[in-house]
Parts: sequence; structure tokens; C-alpha cells
Amino acid sequence: MLYNSSDAIERAWQILEKIPGRATGAYSHSQGVKGLRDEIAAGIAARDGFHASGDNIFLTDGASPAVHMMMQLLIRSEKDGILCPLPQYPLYSASIALHGGSFVPYFLDEEIGWGLEVDELKKQVDEARSKGITVRALVVINPGNPTGQVLAEENQKKIVEFCKNEGLVLLADEVYQENIYVEDKQFHSFKKIARSMGYTDDDLPLVSFQSVSKGYYGECGKRGGYMEVTGFNADVREQIYKVASVNLCSNISGQILSSLIMNPPKVGDESYESFMVERDGIISSLARRAKALEEAFNSLEGITCNKAEGAMYLFPRLHLPQKAIGAAQAAGAAPDAYYALRLLQATGIVVVPGSGFCIGSWNISLQMHDLASGGQNPCNHIQIQGIP
Amino acid sequence: MLYNSSDAIERAWQILEKIPGRATGAYSHSQGVKGLRDEIAAGIAARDGFHASGDNIFLTDGASPAVHMMMQLLIRSEKDGILCPLPQYPLYSASIALHGGSFVPYFLDEEIGWGLEVDELKKQVDEARSKGITVRALVVINPGNPTGQVLAEENQKKIVEFCKNEGLVLLADEVYQENIYVEDKQFHSFKKIARSMGYTDDDLPLVSFQSVSKGYYGECGKRGGYMEVTGFNADVREQIYKVASVNLCSNISGQILSSLIMNPPKVGDESYESFMVERDGIISSLARRAKALEEAFNSLEGITCNKAEGAMYLFPRLHLPQKAIGAAQAAGAAPDAYYALRLLQATGIVVVPGSGFCIGSWNISLQMHDLASGGQNPCNHIQIQGIP
Repeated sequence: MLYNSSDAIERAWQILEKIPGRATGAYSHSQGVKGLRDEIAAGIAARDGFHASGDNIFLTDGASPAVHMMMQLLIRSEKDGILCPLPQYPLYSASIALHGGSFVPYFLDEEIGWGLEVDELKKQVDEARSKGITVRALVVINPGNPTGQVLAEENQKKIVEFCKNEGLVLLADEVYQENIYVEDKQFHSFKKIARSMGYTDDDLPLVSFQSVSKGYYGECGKRGGYMEVTGFNADVREQIYKVASVNLCSNISGQILSSLIMNPPKVGDESYESFMVERDGIISSLARRAKALEEAFNSLEGITCNKAEGAMYLFPRLHLPQKAIGAAQAAGAAPDAYYALRLLQATGIVVVPGSGFCIGSWNISLQMHDLASGGQNPCNHIQIQGIP
Repeated sequence: MLYNSSDAIERAWQILEKIPGRATGAYSHSQGVKGLRDEIAAGIAARDGFHASGDNIFLTDGASPAVHMMMQLLIRSEKDGILCPLPQYPLYSASIALHGGSFVPYFLDEEIGWGLEVDELKKQVDEARSKGITVRALVVINPGNPTGQVLAEENQKKIVEFCKNEGLVLLADEVYQENIYVEDKQFHSFKKIARSMGYTDDDLPLVSFQSVSKGYYGECGKRGGYMEVTGFNADVREQIYKVASVNLCSNISGQILSSLIMNPPKVGDESYESFMVERDGIISSLARRAKALEEAFNSLEGITCNKAEGAMYLFPRLHLPQKAIGAAQAAGAAPDAYYALRLLQATGIVVVPGSGFCIGSWNISLQMHDLASGGQNPCNHIQIQGIP
């Protein structure tokens, strides 16, 4: 990309002008620099075709602190439950545990491409309620981590309807919104879906998480991200702001990067062409590798694998032979832990056994991320998950 | 300062070499880049004259997340109490409230220069225990925020002894360690004090917080900081690491800055002289203004003010006339809130009434910070604190 293009230089000046005193070393407003939030809101509005406001943006040191902030606010005791997918990105179980709430799992269905069935959500909510749990929110990760699926629009509508009917806050982890690898799927933010159904800011509390660590940018070490918070009343909003202000502000470099990813170079900008070449190169490289790995896994005996639709993961299923399971049992290890150790010894490939996920099958999560963005992580780690 | 000096360039290369893959955009180890932690440990050892280890350093997005991390780990329920100074920096009360613990106040004594008396600590601990509170830790802010005092070495020894005897974790907020303005006071870290008393890593759990937001650097917007954690057993250490790893890592730029503040240019480096000129210029400017304000306050009728020893604050006492108190009462406002409003109307100076501090007198906290480091904050805010 053309780093010294006229639009890049112009943008740098614009960003400096947005920051009071041009001071990138100073604390900002606790939600983040207002001008940067406005830029992000304009990017969201352009993406979705619906209004967005900088007042609803909370800039954070990556998506994780934003998730913690919401858990902090949602969980009052162990009687409060948060619906989360299994398999899941462990940030959610960790954050719920840290804040003393109850993890209410719903299971993604591998048979239908790690699909999210509203019947399953309903079943789990009812079960949790029968145990005296107040279910407060639903976490949806789309595109999926670690399952790599992209939700269909119809499915998303049913999820929105479900949250509306059940009075749940919808926590939409949308950090992989740029990582889509199949022609027949597109990313739709949950806010866009809700607004297209006619639901306004008064109808549905909805939080969308975004990060500079994923997409084609992958600047994990910069710790930038934001959440867009809509559908809460003024009293709750004030509490969200109060929690945000305890830590003063997120890092300004991360704030700037967050504004950049939501407002990339436009047609007519000097850098546009080189930006698009670099962007498409990264995305198509990820897509190519996803496809290659998906095919490789499906060509192996004893392994099946769903389509790599998005995010940075494949989640193939292992069909371990009885003798391997027997050997694991003889060694006093869970079959997946045993497999992981043997794979490491035989090949040097580091693999994480995921017995804790309890998803009823053995699966491997291959993180393409590591291959993707210039050596962000020094090794490929493959996670093996599940107990049969 | 000479930014293009040979040592600055050499240092930049050294830092890059410390970061795996030279990737400042990648996640680091959850405690922070090992090479940077080692550099910080070397800086601590040089400062204190006692061993420090990079394994004990946790790099964080400023001191605030580090404080939260410790509160998260220390507080199990509202029956767990944390001893904190009054007046205090409100991060502590906020963090304790967020984590559901009990705030156990101890009062700093204005009559002896905002001194910290061990008798007072003992009294408050006993009182808390008589109410069924398990007091887990003592927070000491040295130099003081917002009171600007610097603890004497003898006083620190008594505090260490007290923590040892009472089985308390000592949480030492030492972010103003570079901000000392009087000849007869010096900064001593609590770890140095404890080690000089013969206490080893086995004797006393001790956490020291440091930040790139204060000192002569004042890079608040970069969100860099660390905590040095000593005196915990392996099991507890593992839990601290687990909590740190939930958020993956702190921002790499902040990590680099943290290593720089603990390892500034040395005698013989090309940049040394210009660095010292800039550093001393900032510190002596802060000291000059502290002195000027201290004298100005003490020359005003109805205001008394302790010495400005360190940190970035003055905390003068208001002796309001009875008529002012009466006018406040007639307006249905707390006297400090009324004073704040009238001051704003009359002069445009923004002042925060601090009735919530309940320290038994009226005081004003003047934050010199705002004046100090290149417009970090756009306005001087003065806090008025206390109810008579």
C-alpha cells in the first residue's frame, strides 16, 4: 500500500485535528476521542445502510475488555446466566466465571455446518430458568470462532426475534466481519438485521464488538477495538459510561487504528488501488488456504470437516479408531489429550486438547490466523476439542 | 532530547530484537514481551539495589488494569475488605465496588502532612474485623494522590511490619516515584524497604504498580504500565497469570514505553545530556509550580496548605466562613458543592466538589499534572473535597 499517498498524509492530519491538543500521549474522553468515534459511526452507517452515532461507540483496548465490561454490567450474581455457544472462544466462559455469573451453553450443530438453531436456544433458556437462573444475554459469534461458519440472514432474523421475545441483550461478537471466504455468504451485522426488521433503538438492547486484531489488518498487538451499544435506556447507558471511565481511556494508537479499519481508502483516493490489492491479497490468501485445508482434511481417513466460510478457523472432526481410544484409556489420559501429545511427539506440531469443551465429538480447530498476517504468532496451534 | 542519537537508534534495534518476529502488531506473551520485562527488572534492581526478575513483571495497559487484576484476585465476597487511604484516588473505591468487596478506609492525618499512622491502620483493621470483614490487603499510594506527601523511610518500615504481622498483601501504588520536589525526601519502593529489613520473597506478598502516565514522561494516552508481583506462592502466581491471559496481552507500544522509563539513557550515551536537560526541566518546573502554588495558597485568607512534596497534587484546606456555610445550606447544597458552583460562575475555573470523600474537612486538590506535560488535559481541574 502507498503509505506516502496524498490521502494517507491528509488522513494523518485529519486524525491529529480530531484529537484535542493534537496530543496522542494524553488521556482521551473515556469512550474514546469523539472525532474518531464519529468516523467509526460513519463507517458503520456506510456498511449497514442504517444510522449510527459516535455517542454509542466505546473505544477499548481490543474486544476483550469490552466483553468484560458488558459481563461486569450484566452479571449481578451466580443466578444471572449468559447464553454462549459451544464450542466457544474461551474469553466468554472466563469472563463469566470472573464476574461470578452462570455460563448457559447452547450447542452449535455440526451436522448443519455449525448452525445455530433457535429451538436449541429456547431449550437451553427454559432449562436454565427451571434451575432459577435469570438469563440476561445471548452471545453470538459471527463469523464463528472456532467453528468458522457464517450465519445466514434468515437465521440471524430468528435470533433477533428470539432475543426480543425473551428479553435478552444480544451480544454480537462481529470481530471477523471482514473474513468471509465463500461466494454465497455475506456478513450482516446484527444491528443491520434488527433495523431491517423494523426494530429501533427502543426495541432491542444490542452490543456489537469489533477489533483491529482480525480482518485483513490483524494488528493484535495494538489492542484496538470498540463496542457499539444501542437499545439501552439512559440510566443503563450512564452505568456503562461509569464503568468505562474507571480505566480512564483506551490507548490512543488503538483508537486511531479502530477508526482506520472502519474508514478504509475510498475510490478516487491515491492509495485506493494499492490498498485494495493488499487487502484482497490477504483475504484471498486466507480463503485459498482455508479451502486447501478443508479439502486436505476431508481427504484424510477418519477426519471430516465442514466448509470454511469465514473467521480464521477450521474445525474438523476426528473419528478416532477404538484402538487409539483404548491406548489413551490405558495411559489414563483423555483421548484428545493423548492424541495431542502423540502428534506433538511425532511431528512437532503443537495441539491443544479441548476436553473441557464437552461438545460430544472430537474436533480439531486449525487457526489460519497464524499463517495469515505476517507471523503474528510464531507457531500454528491446532486445538483438539471434545470428548465422545 | 536527541531523538536521532546513536544510542536511541541502537535501542530501537535492541527493542525490535526482543520482540518475537519483530512484530509489534502481534500478540505478546500475556505478561508482556519477556525481553522488555527483563529490562524493567534490571531497572528496578538498579533503582533499589535488590534483585528483581522479569518473571515477576506483568505489563498492563496502564496501572488501572493492574489494580483491577489484583482486586479481582483478592476479593471473594463483600466479606473481603481492602484498606485504602482517605482521601484516595477513586480508582480504588471504584475497583473494590466493581468486584463486590468492602472498602475499609484509613484516614491520612493532615496535621502531620497527610501522614500515614500505623495506629490508625490497626484501629481500622480491628474495627473491620469486628464487623466480620476479612481484611486482605493494604493500599498505600506513595507519593500520595491526591495529597502529594512522600512517606518517610521509617514510616514505610512500620507499614511493612504491620502488613507482615497482620498477614496483609501490600499493594503499593508507586506511579509517582519520579515526582519528588523536596530535598529532604526521597522515593523508596516498598520492595526496597522490605528487602532492606531482611524480608525475602517468602515473607511478604507485595505488588508495586508503575505507569508511563506520570513522572516526567506523562504519556497517559499510550496506556503503558506494569506491576511487580513478589511474595506469592506458585499456586497464586498461576492464578494471577491466568487472569492476565484472559485479555491476551497489553498494547505493545505501551510495553515498550514501560521498558524505556525504567531504563533511561545512561552516562556516556550520546543522548544522555539532552535527556537529562529535558527530564530535569520538567521535574524542576513541576517543583517550582508546586512551591509557588503552596505559597500562594498559604498566603490566602482562610486557606492552609501542606508542603508539596511529591506526586502532582496540592491539597489545601478551606476554612469557610459561617456565612458561606449558611448560604450553602439555604441553597440546599453541600458547602463544597456550593463553593464549586460559585467559583465556576465567578471565575470559569472548573472545580469538583468532593463531598463523597468524608474526610472531615474541606480541602481543594490542585492537579499540577495538567500544567505539566504539554497539555495532557485541556483544563486545570481543582477538586474540593470533604464535609466538615
